[in-house]
Amino acid sequence: MPAKDLFHDAVRHALEKEGWVITHDPLHLRIQSLDFYIDLGAERLIAAERAGEKIAVEVKSFLGASAISEFYKALGQFIPYRAALAEKDPERVLFLAVPADTYSTFFEQRFIQTIIERECVRLLVYDEKREVIKVWIP
Amino acid sequence: MPAKDLFHDAVRHALEKEGWVITHDPLHLRIQSLDFYIDLGAERLIAAERAGEKIAVEVKSFLGASAISEFYKALGQFIPYRAALAEKDPERVLFLAVPADTYSTFFEQRFIQTIIERECVRLLVYDEKREVIKVWIP
Repeated sequence: MPAKDLFHDAVRHALEKEGWVITHDPLHLRIQSLDFYIDLGAERLIAAERAGEKIAVEVKSFLGASAISEFYKALGQFIPYRAALAEKDPERVLFLAVPADTYSTFFEQRFIQTIIERECVRLLVYDEKREVIKVWIP
Repeated sequence: MPAKDLFHDAVRHALEKEGWVITHDPLHLRIQSLDFYIDLGAERLIAAERAGEKIAVEVKSFLGASAISEFYKALGQFIPYRAALAEKDPERVLFLAVPADTYSTFFEQRFIQTIIERECVRLLVYDEKREVIKVWIP
């Protein structure tokens, strides 16, 4: 299993504050001989009579040497993780969790926005100090 | 500029053997404040009266701890590189160069094939010892 990202617990707490129940930490999927460990699986009941919303969240801290290198790795994980979920747990929606600082300095660049939109990467922007979710995109 | 991949020169020689002229080593693209360095740019004249074919090649050795981690990084680079080329040099076709051993042990798995096909990743499979290209896919 891969090491937990530094802000893993901050995102976990932020989700819990919004009423999500953490059901998997990590969420393990196995496809043939390949193992995928997505950081968090969570569920929230919308109303008593309806099925719950289900998400998976891959947490990134973006504390490495360069934001672009971290972005390569995050994008390269996101796409196979989403494909693995589509096979094994198709109702669960995958989000990439990124810190608010990185969102405003890096993700808001026009070229990065183009990639994110074209690849349909859903983002969860978090404040790691206050342990809150600032925005879900889209 | 990022460090050269271990098999960079083997792929360069393999391309030259097939009649490609290496025009960039690396191929640098700048979009706003983002710098992209694709390992190789190459060109081959098809016939005197026609324009040349142009390619860009990102070389991966897959010598790290796990093939899946190397794959995440390769895929996460390939997609932005292709988008950068589409803006700056739209006639140039991007290939991901992977060693033949890794191709047969890792890339031929059904799930990895699905990702490669869905994301339209073009592969150049090379033999690093003989310094030859074994196959271009597709």
